[in-house]
Amino acid sequence: MTTVLKLGGSLITDKDRRETLDDAALSAAADAVADADVGTDLALVHGAGSFGHHYAEKYGVSVTEGTTDAGAALEIHGSMTTLNRFVLSRLHDRNVPALPVHPLSAGARDGEASLDFSLTTVCTMLDEGFVPVSHGDVVAHEGKGTTIISGDELVARFATALDADRVGLCSTVDGVYDAEGDVIDRIERFDDVADALGGSDATDVTGGMAGKVRTLLDLDAPAYVFGAADLPTFLDGGEPGTRID
Amino acid sequence: MTTVLKLGGSLITDKDRRETLDDAALSAAADAVADADVGTDLALVHGAGSFGHHYAEKYGVSVTEGTTDAGAALEIHGSMTTLNRFVLSRLHDRNVPALPVHPLSAGARDGEASLDFSLTTVCTMLDEGFVPVSHGDVVAHEGKGTTIISGDELVARFATALDADRVGLCSTVDGVYDAEGDVIDRIERFDDVADALGGSDATDVTGGMAGKVRTLLDLDAPAYVFGAADLPTFLDGGEPGTRID
Repeated sequence: MTTVLKLGGSLITDKDRRETLDDAALSAAADAVADADVGTDLALVHGAGSFGHHYAEKYGVSVTEGTTDAGAALEIHGSMTTLNRFVLSRLHDRNVPALPVHPLSAGARDGEASLDFSLTTVCTMLDEGFVPVSHGDVVAHEGKGTTIISGDELVARFATALDADRVGLCSTVDGVYDAEGDVIDRIERFDDVADALGGSDATDVTGGMAGKVRTLLDLDAPAYVFGAADLPTFLDGGEPGTRID
Repeated sequence: MTTVLKLGGSLITDKDRRETLDDAALSAAADAVADADVGTDLALVHGAGSFGHHYAEKYGVSVTEGTTDAGAALEIHGSMTTLNRFVLSRLHDRNVPALPVHPLSAGARDGEASLDFSLTTVCTMLDEGFVPVSHGDVVAHEGKGTTIISGDELVARFATALDADRVGLCSTVDGVYDAEGDVIDRIERFDDVADALGGSDATDVTGGMAGKVRTLLDLDAPAYVFGAADLPTFLDGGEPGTRID
């Protein structure tokens, strides 16, 4: 039984203040992870929030726009590893055996933007009882220097490569909302929710809900989008928020 | 043309004082790298010196003895990433486009202690004009939790996987010494130097000169063992210290 869980950047950071943790929210999430039934392999991913995004915007780096400036790439990466250390620290404080997996060291994109990311490290960590914790980052990208890899892309890669049984996206929303602002219980086809999500905007590749839903629909595993209060329910095998499959 | 260069931990740190940089030596090495002819791809590896070794000893972790304690592994790793940031910083100060490659994120060992380490990231970094900088570290190890990977093992892996043209080990010795304390000009067979190196001690796997020489003899590329003063000569294509091939 393998679970892939993403802690949204908006959840664990104060998005309005640069490089500021939302320590109460992160600590509550760490509590939930520590209290969860340990019978499942758990791979964690977290987003950037007020950490990496600031530097990515400063240098104009995105999933498609790269930089060949190693200093810029290292500033973005360094901001994300700082946030990653906070996440690891809060987990270690609660005896969760977390270890970092930095995409800049583990992945790369080729000239067609296809991601190479060996999951041997993550699999070995899981088999040895550790909890790998990865994050949005920069990665080397053929012809572009370095570009951004989002937490959502990592969740999808991990879920597929680990043949995950369940995927969870824990953030500041209680699920995917319909046009009336109510949480949709279940999504099985994008067309059913396209209007509520603002249509099929092809440019939405880094965190908008439409992109998330499309990505999650492509996975074999059922995925759940839910808020922080529902994290214990998800980790206990429940079905909070919106189920996407 | 690809060069793999290791900066020894004893060179860039003060081995007698815990987590203390030898900033003069590191800065001189960074000067040499910055001043070198940029016509060659350069992959760097550095050792641990007074950084990682202290914590590895504290927790009894080695190439063969593992730990399942994530806190211990993270202390060793954190000490090495701290040193890695110093190295990156000194290189960036001199406009060398260095990026980190952390083995804990990129590699793992299986049950036979065989190393899986995807070099796609390093290759893409090199192709994009960056200088990947890796280091001794802990890696997940099937059946053992995490174990140490030495800088020397990384040098060998990089040299083979990158089909390197030249390998350099820059440290605090001017080469491999013979029984009289003179630098040996060239080594082509281990037996020729076994006596001078203290014989074929099979337990010497993490940094002793005998182990280094054995590893370097196995490489296709010629390798040079030399002191800090000879780094510019090596980077300019010269043949300082002891040539091993």
